[in-house]
Amino acid sequence: MIVTLTPNPAIDVTYRVGTHTPGDTNRVLEVQRRPGGKGVNVARVLAAVDIPVRTLLPLGGDAGRWLGGALDVPFEAVPISGETRTTVTVTGDGHPTVYTEPGPEVSEEEWAAFDSRLSSGLSAADLLVVSGSLPRGASPDLVADWVRIAREAGVRTLVDASGPALLAAARAGAAVKPNQAELLAATSAADEAAGAAALLRLGAQLVVVSRGADGIAAYTSGGVFAVPAIPDVQGNPTGAGDAATAGLAVALAAGCPLIEALHNAAALGAAAVLRPVAGEVDLAAYRRFLNGAPA
Amino acid sequence: MIVTLTPNPAIDVTYRVGTHTPGDTNRVLEVQRRPGGKGVNVARVLAAVDIPVRTLLPLGGDAGRWLGGALDVPFEAVPISGETRTTVTVTGDGHPTVYTEPGPEVSEEEWAAFDSRLSSGLSAADLLVVSGSLPRGASPDLVADWVRIAREAGVRTLVDASGPALLAAARAGAAVKPNQAELLAATSAADEAAGAAALLRLGAQLVVVSRGADGIAAYTSGGVFAVPAIPDVQGNPTGAGDAATAGLAVALAAGCPLIEALHNAAALGAAAVLRPVAGEVDLAAYRRFLNGAPA
Repeated sequence: MIVTLTPNPAIDVTYRVGTHTPGDTNRVLEVQRRPGGKGVNVARVLAAVDIPVRTLLPLGGDAGRWLGGALDVPFEAVPISGETRTTVTVTGDGHPTVYTEPGPEVSEEEWAAFDSRLSSGLSAADLLVVSGSLPRGASPDLVADWVRIAREAGVRTLVDASGPALLAAARAGAAVKPNQAELLAATSAADEAAGAAALLRLGAQLVVVSRGADGIAAYTSGGVFAVPAIPDVQGNPTGAGDAATAGLAVALAAGCPLIEALHNAAALGAAAVLRPVAGEVDLAAYRRFLNGAPA
Repeated sequence: MIVTLTPNPAIDVTYRVGTHTPGDTNRVLEVQRRPGGKGVNVARVLAAVDIPVRTLLPLGGDAGRWLGGALDVPFEAVPISGETRTTVTVTGDGHPTVYTEPGPEVSEEEWAAFDSRLSSGLSAADLLVVSGSLPRGASPDLVADWVRIAREAGVRTLVDASGPALLAAARAGAAVKPNQAELLAATSAADEAAGAAALLRLGAQLVVVSRGADGIAAYTSGGVFAVPAIPDVQGNPTGAGDAATAGLAVALAAGCPLIEALHNAAALGAAAVLRPVAGEVDLAAYRRFLNGAPA
């Protein structure tokens, strides 16, 4: 089983408007609400490829209650007093506009309860995936705690985070999976290789860098592997990174060679691009891509 | 007591961003959530001036639960299966951008339960105020039903609505309070006097037209009264219309002469402009304005 951890889940709301008119009143024609957060999306992809999965997340307030009720993957919620956040995406006649709430403040006592639930939930786990931002005011050291808790349970951790949380994960010895922009921003390195080397020096066990249309690369102390992206895949790139994380996680949990893990990540990421909604994948395309067939 | 009816309540969410960048991701710096809907705002103003009030509203889903928990005026909620809507206002470096959800679909059975609660809730009422939009798909005839139910209970109705709901209210013999733009849009009249005359011909008992900075006018079969706005009032006009409705309602419920009702509406509307939040009024300024003092 894979456990995903979603530190800052969200209700992802999408508003469809006709003509988007900033500075004025926009009548919303259609509203969609779904549970979101990167760890939730990773769990959804894992469930779609029949991997036993459970996501652990803090939930609070009526928004948290709604999210728990609508979540379509197995989960364990740790109750918090703050209100679970919402993100709003406005789609209309131009590029989508996104508003991201910072998320609730989670108390030290609530994080302690969270850690304790994580610890007991890892007994049957093959891998822990920590994915997405931390709520407002949360210390990046939390990520290091989660990596340590997993290690004590004999479980490896894969972290998809950015900024100080990414650095904390590397220092704690996790496998990390930033995208190229996150890698460069967190390390202030001049290029990808230098950034990956910096994270390895901090202690990261493995640094996997997603390059969008340019594929995916893995850096270890032993060298670098890279695979190209599946060519000519057209669609919605939202959620492709989470699907790639899921593909990587499946292979790492199964003990596959790294090059196979990268191929799996690229195939699952491309299969997500073919579906309009984050967390969904085109399973038939995934199998074709794994067998080397083109889009 | 005054009963206000809020057919389509909302959670009013305000996002403060730094620079508002449509077509991109906007990090929300501050989130405010409060119960909204015009009938709720009218009730809040009435409570602020110590008038016994209760608002009747349909509430559904976790959003409805949140709204009920946060509502700071006496209310009676009729449960519905749909989810109570949200409005989002984005404030930043330019004009505010507003997104209004259409609201839940309310079934015929739910409206029947609503009517029955309205009927039993009017026994101690001096006036019914129907204020704001109808939820998606709701028939304007509902407004006529509410006016009739109130009449059967011996209670007058004041309706602040637009479009077909405004016409239905006039036909049902209510007192109506559109703003000038709503009046012209609903009646397709060339000017205010012609629009008001059209509503009176349909059957409206009284037509009060708010003119923003140009004051407020009342049309009856006997003639027209008008009072100017309180001059030089600077602030936030959001909610001023609801405060003016509240001021009108207080005077109508007390049986005051119409000219006094208009003065009260103008004073309370201006006192709302001085407060940043819809539903709040500057009570000291209200008393000054009633006594003829300037802003």
